[in-house]
Amino acid sequence: MLKISQKGINMPESPIRKLVPYAEAAKKRGTTVYHLNIGQPDIKTPEVALDAIRNYDETTIEYSHSAGNVSYREKLAKYYNNIDIPVTSDDILITTGGSEAILFALNTCCDEGDEIIIPEPFYANYNGFATAAGVKVVPITSTIENDFALPPIEEFDKLITPKTRAIVICNPNNPTGYLYSKEELQQLKELVLKHNLYLFSDEVYREFCYGGHTHFSAMQLEGLENHVILFDSVSKRYSECGIRIGALVTRNKEVIKTALKFGQARLCPPGLGQVAAEASLDTPKEYFDEVYNEYISRRDFMVSALNKMEGVYCPEPKGAFYTVVKLPIDNSDRFAQWLLEDFSYEGQTVMVAPASGFYATEGLGQNEVRIAYVLKNEDLEKAMKVLEEALKVYPGRKL
Amino acid sequence: MLKISQKGINMPESPIRKLVPYAEAAKKRGTTVYHLNIGQPDIKTPEVALDAIRNYDETTIEYSHSAGNVSYREKLAKYYNNIDIPVTSDDILITTGGSEAILFALNTCCDEGDEIIIPEPFYANYNGFATAAGVKVVPITSTIENDFALPPIEEFDKLITPKTRAIVICNPNNPTGYLYSKEELQQLKELVLKHNLYLFSDEVYREFCYGGHTHFSAMQLEGLENHVILFDSVSKRYSECGIRIGALVTRNKEVIKTALKFGQARLCPPGLGQVAAEASLDTPKEYFDEVYNEYISRRDFMVSALNKMEGVYCPEPKGAFYTVVKLPIDNSDRFAQWLLEDFSYEGQTVMVAPASGFYATEGLGQNEVRIAYVLKNEDLEKAMKVLEEALKVYPGRKL
Ligand SMILES: Cc1ncc(COP(=O)(O)O)c(C=O)c1O
Ligand SMILES: Cc1ncc(COP(=O)(O)O)c(C=O)c1O
Repeated sequence: MLKISQKGINMPESPIRKLVPYAEAAKKRGTTVYHLNIGQPDIKTPEVALDAIRNYDETTIEYSHSAGNVSYREKLAKYYNNIDIPVTSDDILITTGGSEAILFALNTCCDEGDEIIIPEPFYANYNGFATAAGVKVVPITSTIENDFALPPIEEFDKLITPKTRAIVICNPNNPTGYLYSKEELQQLKELVLKHNLYLFSDEVYREFCYGGHTHFSAMQLEGLENHVILFDSVSKRYSECGIRIGALVTRNKEVIKTALKFGQARLCPPGLGQVAAEASLDTPKEYFDEVYNEYISRRDFMVSALNKMEGVYCPEPKGAFYTVVKLPIDNSDRFAQWLLEDFSYEGQTVMVAPASGFYATEGLGQNEVRIAYVLKNEDLEKAMKVLEEALKVYPGRKL
Repeated sequence: MLKISQKGINMPESPIRKLVPYAEAAKKRGTTVYHLNIGQPDIKTPEVALDAIRNYDETTIEYSHSAGNVSYREKLAKYYNNIDIPVTSDDILITTGGSEAILFALNTCCDEGDEIIIPEPFYANYNGFATAAGVKVVPITSTIENDFALPPIEEFDKLITPKTRAIVICNPNNPTGYLYSKEELQQLKELVLKHNLYLFSDEVYREFCYGGHTHFSAMQLEGLENHVILFDSVSKRYSECGIRIGALVTRNKEVIKTALKFGQARLCPPGLGQVAAEASLDTPKEYFDEVYNEYISRRDFMVSALNKMEGVYCPEPKGAFYTVVKLPIDNSDRFAQWLLEDFSYEGQTVMVAPASGFYATEGLGQNEVRIAYVLKNEDLEKAMKVLEEALKVYPGRKL
């Protein structure tokens, strides 16, 4: 037989993917499936972005600069400056989604076998990028009992080895919705300086902070100019996931220069996407107000609905549009499959993401699921009702 | 200091990039620079593609399927079937440019330290992807004396070790313009079967074959269904390099399944690009006829102009839009820089790509440059005149 690489064999599959055939079968049977499992917002893309696409007037769609169009990078630098992140266009490498920024950072900073520490539960695709880059993910557990706050810094300290290269945080967090405080970031700063590590800060949900909580970026930590690498993306900010535009941002000149070499090999980030992303920077404030109001009303409804169910605990997410919820169940993989395969309530069911897929430590997250509040309130209400009924009759119920 | 990975340090820079500041300085001095160095065609993108973008009518730009839109893959399968490449939509993974297909194939089939054999001179970015994937490029030299035909198969045989995973060909070839014959591909088939290797076939220039020569695809080799992985791209075919759409195509089920895992981690290929690429499949035949006529007239003019210059030899390229030319010079890097820094003829000069950057073997290509005929005839004529005059007075002239 022809060989498949070890990396290829080890590449994880999305934890949700194995549920997809069950969801399809449910739909075939005529059941309405409410998708609480996805990270694809239902929010409209800003008109300015759609207009820019419709008004595209080049006659040859050429390669762009490998680091992204200069005009876009300059405008993006202004966006950062406005939110007190002092960078210039030279500190920005436009990438094919935030996804590529993650891969470039790992390739730039880590050798085969190096380690990165990530608070779990975490965005599952970090596993895939780490596998592709030959890097080992070392999880540090954050718990629902603490609403998924940053684990004590001494716990990080214990995990550091000569192979540790970076701490990775996602802020606001997917999947937990937790928003790290300035104090938590200060603690990370000490740690990172003490051990001379990189701090990778995934802030693709920056714009989604609720209830008066403001976002403090790792890029605002003084004295960490060379340590912090920011992963950013327009996917969620402007609900334009499909255009595939993100950014790697850092004031570390060696890092940006090296990451650009990976960027040059793949020629350039998507051109039409850059047109849409650049135009998106002119999105009026009202757009964000509307989105904010929409999400906060969904969140408030969802959190209160969940916490009213017997044996359910949902921390109040302060950011992003996800939450990890504790359910009175034996096993979230089994529960998620059962919801699709064996359950329906008035012709409806829900699809949730088993939280086990977001933990690297075997056995964790068994009684937790991630819920994304990307459904309009009307559907979210129905979905919550379905979930409540499901929990009552689930054979693996465990209070 | 913070560590930069070994990969990052080893990542090659584009061989042309170091000339860019000299080209910019020349332009600042008012000199016209004819760019014979680039792979960005000046041909217009088909109207059907531009129309599809302008008529884009979604209101939320969502993630697409990780393997690419089903509608696009089905239509693309028909395109392949029409040119006698029997594949289904399941054999196709839509990638972010042909570039990503190369990276996915290396990651899927090769472990750290594995080797791939590539006839040199070759597309320089193969080096970058190999470095990113931790794979070693083993060059096998093709020579201008043989018009860059496939090296004798016994020479390949000698280079094969237990670590050899794949033979990589680019057909038609960038940078040489060589088109491999069916017989040459049959020879590769024997080799690949004998040693149980993959055959990576980069056919992004498939549509560009001249003078009655037809393209024979590695995908048409019988009995190699599990061995051949095709890299494809719409960049050159429809002159839409900026949309970043390519494909990895193979009938090897394990490979496509594994490559898709890398695809899932990065979520999806560009959405707007897929819209343009799908529409491009309806490009009328007249478009290609026009492009063909344009390129063949450029090629014929260029080849004859070059071969008329004293000490110059240009094989007749049968495909793509490049040629590697032998010049009466001491060192092509020096010559290329001199052209930009010290020379001008009637206020004009040319930028060429030193061929050394396309060879992996140290010291080769010193008296060769790659010329891309991506300029309209009028400019190409001027560029050839400039080159002729330059060769006469170049201090490092060496007949
Ligand atoms: C935490 C996090 N980081 C990065 C990404 C990558 O997104 P994209 O590649 O669309 O920018 C996602 C997408 O869901 C995410 O949730
Ligand atoms: C031989 C070859 N392969 C692959 C590519 C990658 O092109 P893209 O990523 O635009 O599809 C190129 C681009 O110049 C090329 O010349």
